[in-house]
Amino acid sequence: MARNTQVAADHNAPPITQILAEFVATHPSRGWSDAVDHEAHRTFLNWLGCAVGAARHEAADAALAAVRMLEPSPQATVLGRKDRVDMASAALVNGITSHTFDFDDTHLKTIIHPAGPVASAALALAERQRSSGRELLDALVLGIDVSCRVGNMMYPEHYDRGWHITGSTGMLGAAAACARLLRLDARQTQMALGIAASQPVGMREQFGTMTKPFHPGGAARAGLMSALLASQGFTASPKALEAPRGYAQTVSTKNDWSQVTGELGQRFEISFNSYKPFACGIVIHPSIDACVQLREQGVRPEQVERIELKVHSLVLELTGKKEPADGLQAKFSVYHGCAAGLMFGRAAEDEFSDAVVTRSDMVALRRKVVATVDDAIDEASVDVTAVLTDGRRVHVFVKNAIGSIENPMTDALLEGKFHGLSDAVLGADATGKLIEACWDLGEAKDVQALVALAVPR
Amino acid sequence: MARNTQVAADHNAPPITQILAEFVATHPSRGWSDAVDHEAHRTFLNWLGCAVGAARHEAADAALAAVRMLEPSPQATVLGRKDRVDMASAALVNGITSHTFDFDDTHLKTIIHPAGPVASAALALAERQRSSGRELLDALVLGIDVSCRVGNMMYPEHYDRGWHITGSTGMLGAAAACARLLRLDARQTQMALGIAASQPVGMREQFGTMTKPFHPGGAARAGLMSALLASQGFTASPKALEAPRGYAQTVSTKNDWSQVTGELGQRFEISFNSYKPFACGIVIHPSIDACVQLREQGVRPEQVERIELKVHSLVLELTGKKEPADGLQAKFSVYHGCAAGLMFGRAAEDEFSDAVVTRSDMVALRRKVVATVDDAIDEASVDVTAVLTDGRRVHVFVKNAIGSIENPMTDALLEGKFHGLSDAVLGADATGKLIEACWDLGEAKDVQALVALAVPR
Repeated sequence: MARNTQVAADHNAPPITQILAEFVATHPSRGWSDAVDHEAHRTFLNWLGCAVGAARHEAADAALAAVRMLEPSPQATVLGRKDRVDMASAALVNGITSHTFDFDDTHLKTIIHPAGPVASAALALAERQRSSGRELLDALVLGIDVSCRVGNMMYPEHYDRGWHITGSTGMLGAAAACARLLRLDARQTQMALGIAASQPVGMREQFGTMTKPFHPGGAARAGLMSALLASQGFTASPKALEAPRGYAQTVSTKNDWSQVTGELGQRFEISFNSYKPFACGIVIHPSIDACVQLREQGVRPEQVERIELKVHSLVLELTGKKEPADGLQAKFSVYHGCAAGLMFGRAAEDEFSDAVVTRSDMVALRRKVVATVDDAIDEASVDVTAVLTDGRRVHVFVKNAIGSIENPMTDALLEGKFHGLSDAVLGADATGKLIEACWDLGEAKDVQALVALAVPR
Repeated sequence: MARNTQVAADHNAPPITQILAEFVATHPSRGWSDAVDHEAHRTFLNWLGCAVGAARHEAADAALAAVRMLEPSPQATVLGRKDRVDMASAALVNGITSHTFDFDDTHLKTIIHPAGPVASAALALAERQRSSGRELLDALVLGIDVSCRVGNMMYPEHYDRGWHITGSTGMLGAAAACARLLRLDARQTQMALGIAASQPVGMREQFGTMTKPFHPGGAARAGLMSALLASQGFTASPKALEAPRGYAQTVSTKNDWSQVTGELGQRFEISFNSYKPFACGIVIHPSIDACVQLREQGVRPEQVERIELKVHSLVLELTGKKEPADGLQAKFSVYHGCAAGLMFGRAAEDEFSDAVVTRSDMVALRRKVVATVDDAIDEASVDVTAVLTDGRRVHVFVKNAIGSIENPMTDALLEGKFHGLSDAVLGADATGKLIEACWDLGEAKDVQALVALAVPR
């Protein structure tokens, strides 16, 4: 039994569990700029559209079938469906659907998809206890701040090691949001964060399976339950996040504590949130954008002999699937993304359907894409050249893809994306009303009215 | 966004997810020796006594209060109480109570407490679907084999890094046991293990708080839900355990794959399970045993000037709390353990009550214990010398404490321990019947009869 392994430990970490708990429990309602508050609405809207859009996906069906084996009480709504389940299960299933299409928001500094865990937990609880829209938005801003600051602290080592950082930080944001909604005091909030700290969810190996979207769902559920436990007096270490054998030092070899504490309450990480115009991993977006631009410049698939792509190594590491067999695999194929951009001028969920992915003209076009790694090119950029059969070369360089912080989707584009996801589930009229309710969320006395609009007739 | 961090990856791991899944799905019922099967009964009995004994602990009350906020269906029994909750919540709460007193079983090679996650998940599901006792025992043996083999593979690095290995491997054992009970085929079992692989629970910083026993409870819940999800077609990576960005390589830098595959189906890790005579962390047991022996040799507290303890460094790292303020902290105090052994000749749950811990004679006796690190001494051993006020020195060396593999508790001692835990909850007669039902579990047509005996009148 004897052994000598030692792991380096930092015994001088600041008390970030306490610092974050006091921040979450005491920060004033709407204690941020109009721009931050508007971003919170955009984040909520985008998340909701994704969840509604995937409501009938087989991953949602399977998850809900498993949840039904528990005979849950009808406390909260499964978005985009008529089902009602207990609030923790609603957090789980809505977290799953919000990430199923890989179409949700991205905090680009960390590749965290912050709304999945946080909004899924917060809305389920808010619906159950009839919170106001303002309370929900406050919880969303503060919860996302917690997840993303912890992500900043650990990124990139934590992610490189194998953690799917969305689920492995998201339970903290979800716990924070739910603690806020439950109006826990600072000490109870500290316990909620502490309980959640023991439950990171998700490894990157799961990409391409249903367990990938399970990660934000599982994190949402874990965070919500952590807050409920804390509200009933359940205890955790008050240093659960920062202690030598606590969360951060166990799951990351890099921990820049100042990323958690710096400008806390002044800078809000939700400001750096972005929304995807394309229904796949963010690292493919510059390449799709470039191919959409090629199409806009008149390049047609049948003219193409070769598409030359120069990308950062991470693009091929994450999305290097050369011959995707179905829609799910195509989400991890920069080759398919390029083909879709050039063929259709878009890459929403429909362009990642099995039927499109296996079309012979798409297979042929994908095979014409040649990707080369060039780490002089940023992850956010791409250099694309279409070599045509007549020998012409058409070149596009994308520094920041549409949907990035530097080149964000407009509110109108977000509404269009929402319609694209939701119309087939709720109908266009109901979708329009739901979008309105999202923009008006800050004034809603009770979030139940909005939730009711997310249920199909 | 650009970064260059690289983490070493092993791309040549054997397909252990598949190997374990096939083993769990296809190994014959009772396909092991009588000795292994008897150990399974002992493991179950010991686990059940611990869970019943802590049924009224404030951690159980708090957890159950949080669960009640979900308005659960009465599917399964909270052991030692009249409450019934959904089976996943029963797995959670029973997992918590089984570890609350730190009195449960220990797989000494890994310091895993294997029954907590596995039995808590398996019994809740078995009760719900009215499995036979034989099916439950099969699930227990196979589930524990999965957790402990994965633990062997990663120990000690995984534990040293900060993971509470009971919860961070236990969700795999729980998933395996539940997959077996659900009669999933090998492929579905592989998915269950894969889903569970994304949900390790627990860091060591939580020791001394309610979140420590939450870890086996959370792992039980996660494992059960993973099996339910897999039964409904939810998918995960078929290489979730072994892939470079999968579970094992993300949570441990040491992965000796042969520990999973070697003698699979021939050697059963439940054979190496042990049961605690003392209600605290296993590393204190040699010290308590030694002090009980001092007492048996006539040494009385009032004669003692000093107790000199030579121990492995891990003992003080884990249980070096010099001045415990309450019963929970005392579980992590080798000083308190020694004082209890000398004062009472035992160290069951009562000797870790707040009242005993704060008694002035106990405080005084604790302060007479002087511990020195000597890594020539094995973790399983201790060298103790009582220096008496008259100058005499009484020396005891314990190579293997009572309750170790080499010096196990007898069946009769286990029954005595069970009575000590359960009589105050269920009454002595009912406890006797419950003990009988445990020994007869292999013949039970339906586990519900046994479970009914664990409910107070």
